[in-house]
Amino acid sequence: MDFANAGHDVCAVDNYFRRIIAEETDSEALLPTPTLTERARIFEEVSGKKIDVKIGDLADPDFMNDIVKDYKPDTIVHYAEQPSAPYSMRGAKEARVTFQNNLNVTFNVIWSILEHAPDAHIIKLGTMGEYGTPNIDIEEGWIDVTHKGRTQKFLFPRAAGSLYHTTKVLDTDLLWFYVRTYNLRVTDLMQGPVYGLSSDEADLDPRLTPNFHYDDIFGTLVNRFLVQSVAGIPLTVYGQGGQTRGYLNLRDTLQCVRLAAENPAGPGELNIFNQLTETFSVNEVAAKVKAVGDQKGLNVEIKAIPNPRKELEDHYYNPQHSGLLDLGLKPNFMTDEVIADMLDRIIEHKDRIQIDRIMPRVRWS
Amino acid sequence: MDFANAGHDVCAVDNYFRRIIAEETDSEALLPTPTLTERARIFEEVSGKKIDVKIGDLADPDFMNDIVKDYKPDTIVHYAEQPSAPYSMRGAKEARVTFQNNLNVTFNVIWSILEHAPDAHIIKLGTMGEYGTPNIDIEEGWIDVTHKGRTQKFLFPRAAGSLYHTTKVLDTDLLWFYVRTYNLRVTDLMQGPVYGLSSDEADLDPRLTPNFHYDDIFGTLVNRFLVQSVAGIPLTVYGQGGQTRGYLNLRDTLQCVRLAAENPAGPGELNIFNQLTETFSVNEVAAKVKAVGDQKGLNVEIKAIPNPRKELEDHYYNPQHSGLLDLGLKPNFMTDEVIADMLDRIIEHKDRIQIDRIMPRVRWS
Repeated sequence: MDFANAGHDVCAVDNYFRRIIAEETDSEALLPTPTLTERARIFEEVSGKKIDVKIGDLADPDFMNDIVKDYKPDTIVHYAEQPSAPYSMRGAKEARVTFQNNLNVTFNVIWSILEHAPDAHIIKLGTMGEYGTPNIDIEEGWIDVTHKGRTQKFLFPRAAGSLYHTTKVLDTDLLWFYVRTYNLRVTDLMQGPVYGLSSDEADLDPRLTPNFHYDDIFGTLVNRFLVQSVAGIPLTVYGQGGQTRGYLNLRDTLQCVRLAAENPAGPGELNIFNQLTETFSVNEVAAKVKAVGDQKGLNVEIKAIPNPRKELEDHYYNPQHSGLLDLGLKPNFMTDEVIADMLDRIIEHKDRIQIDRIMPRVRWS
Repeated sequence: MDFANAGHDVCAVDNYFRRIIAEETDSEALLPTPTLTERARIFEEVSGKKIDVKIGDLADPDFMNDIVKDYKPDTIVHYAEQPSAPYSMRGAKEARVTFQNNLNVTFNVIWSILEHAPDAHIIKLGTMGEYGTPNIDIEEGWIDVTHKGRTQKFLFPRAAGSLYHTTKVLDTDLLWFYVRTYNLRVTDLMQGPVYGLSSDEADLDPRLTPNFHYDDIFGTLVNRFLVQSVAGIPLTVYGQGGQTRGYLNLRDTLQCVRLAAENPAGPGELNIFNQLTETFSVNEVAAKVKAVGDQKGLNVEIKAIPNPRKELEDHYYNPQHSGLLDLGLKPNFMTDEVIADMLDRIIEHKDRIQIDRIMPRVRWS
C-alpha cells in the first residue's frame, strides 16, 4: 500500500503460509485479517490505487519464474520467509519447513532475477538477529578486521539465536556470493523488532489494520506487553530482562523499505543497512509500557519468568545504524503517545484476547 | 576401508549421484569404478573385513533416519555432497541440484542425530575453499576480532569462490547453530585439494584404485597436470597461475578423518581443522609435475589459458594448520617420488585418456 500510494506499480504475492501455521499453532492474530485479494480490493475502494495480487508458493521455481518473466520488475522486495523464531524451534517438522521455505525462496529469487530480469534490485528482509549479541560494536553489515598486521574487509560475522534467524544468515551468505560472482544488485535490511498499529494507508479503513500477533510464537515483545497490560495480567520478562535489541516503528519500516527501493544497490553491490531507530532492553520496554498503562489505570505488574530461549540476558549491545538516516529516514520513536495509541487500539478489542496464547509454549531444548 | 582396517564397524552409504552427473557431463573417471556393493565384496575377499553397504538418497529424511535409528552410530562421516565447483556453476539446474542436495543432507544429518543418536559425533567434510583468499592469515576455523578496543571470538569469516564452496559455508553456519543451541558434537574438516592414487587398502587390489577424475568438472589441478603430461599436451595454467591452495595426499586425508573420529568433539563443541599439509601456487604445481615428467622423457610444456573462474590470480595465502599435526598426523608430502608414482600409474592407462574432457567447459559468468 505504501509503494502504491507513492506511485509505484505493485504486485503482491502470498501463499498465506503464516496464516496456516498460525492456525495450526493456535496463534491467530488479534483481529481477523482479510485475504490479500480482499485487502487489495478494500485499498482500491478507499484510495483509488490498484495493487495486483498473485496467490501461490514462491518456493516453487516455476511460479516464481513466471511472475518475474511476466512483470520484469525493477525491484523485488523479498519478505517471503517463515518469520517466527519460536516456530522454527518447535520441532523437526517446523525446523524443516522453515529451512526449506526460507532457503528455497531466496534461491528462487536469485535465479529468477539472473535469468529473467538481471538488472532488477533485490531488497531482502534480513534481521538484526543475524548478528546475535557480540561483545564488539555491530557495524552495518561489514567490518574491517586487522589481524597480525594485515587488514581485510569481511561481512560482519553472524551468530544467530534461532533457526529462523540462522536461515537469514544463510540467505545473506548466498546473496553475497551471487552479488560478487554474477553482479546481482542487492540490499539486505537487518531489521529489528517492529511495533505499531498505524500507517497512513492502514488508517484509511479499519479493515486495513496491520496484522497484530500477541502470542508466544508470532507476537514480539512489545505486542506481548501491550496485550498483557490490557488483559490485566503481568508483563512476562524472560529471565533477567537485560536482553537488548534495536526496535523500530511500523511507519519507519515502511520508510526504510521505500528508501532502499528508491536508492538501489548497483550491479555487484550488496548494500546492508541496520534497520532500527533505538535500542531497549526487555526491562526498559516493560517499564515504558507499565508507565503509560498505569497512567490509563491499568495497574500494570511486571513478572520475571524462566527464559524459554537460549540467549545472553545481560550483554553489550551497540549496533551502528546511520545508513538509512543518511538516506533520509525520519524516525518515529517509541514515545508515551505512541504506546498510549497502541494501548487504546487494543483496548477496543480487549474481548478478543486469548490469554492462553501468551505464555511460552516452545523451549530452546 | 581405512576405518574397517583399523577395526571399526563401518556402514557406507551412497546414491551414485556423482557417477550419474559425471556421465551426464561426459566426465567419467579414468578407470571404471565398481559399484560400492562390488567394491565392498572385493575388499572383503582381499582383507577379510566386512563393510555394510546401503544404497539410497540421504537427502530423503526417512532414508537417513532409518539408517541412524538402525545403527545408532558413534560417528557419522558426512561426505554426501555434490563435490564439484564447476558443476555448481554450470547453470540454474546444476546450481539447484547442488544447493538442494548439499543443504538438505546436512540438515538431515543434524536432525537424525538429534532425534535418534544425540551423543554421536558428526564429522563434516568442509573445504579450505570456504575461506576464499583473504588478505589476512587464515586461522583454524575461529578468529578473535579486536574492534574499537573490545574483543569477540567469531567463526573465521568465509567468502567462497563457487556455489559448491558456498554450500559448505552454509553447512558450517548451520552446524555451528545446532552445536551451540542443542549441544551437537561436530568436527568440520576444511580440506584442501587431495591428490594420490595409493592407500594401504586401495593397493590390495587394482579394482580398489581410488576414483580418478582428470576432466574439467570433477578433476582437480594435480590430476589435470598429471594426465596432460602423460597425454603429451601442455599443462593448462588458468590465468597468471598465482592461485595458491593447501594440498594433501590421499593417505593424509584418510589419517585426518580417522584422527578426527578417534578424537571426537565434546557436546556443544565445534572443532574445526584446516586439513592440508603444504601450500603451492598453480605455477609451482606445474613446475613440479614438469620436472618429474621431463625426467621420464615426457617433454612437458606449460601453457597459460584464460581463467574460466572468477578468482584472484595473485594473492596472500597463509592458512594455519597445526591442529591435525598436534593430533598425530604424519604428512606424506608431494615429493618427486610421489609424483613419479602417480605418473607411472596413469601411463599404464594412457589409452583411456579422453583429451576433449580436459579444457574448461564451464565459465563463471
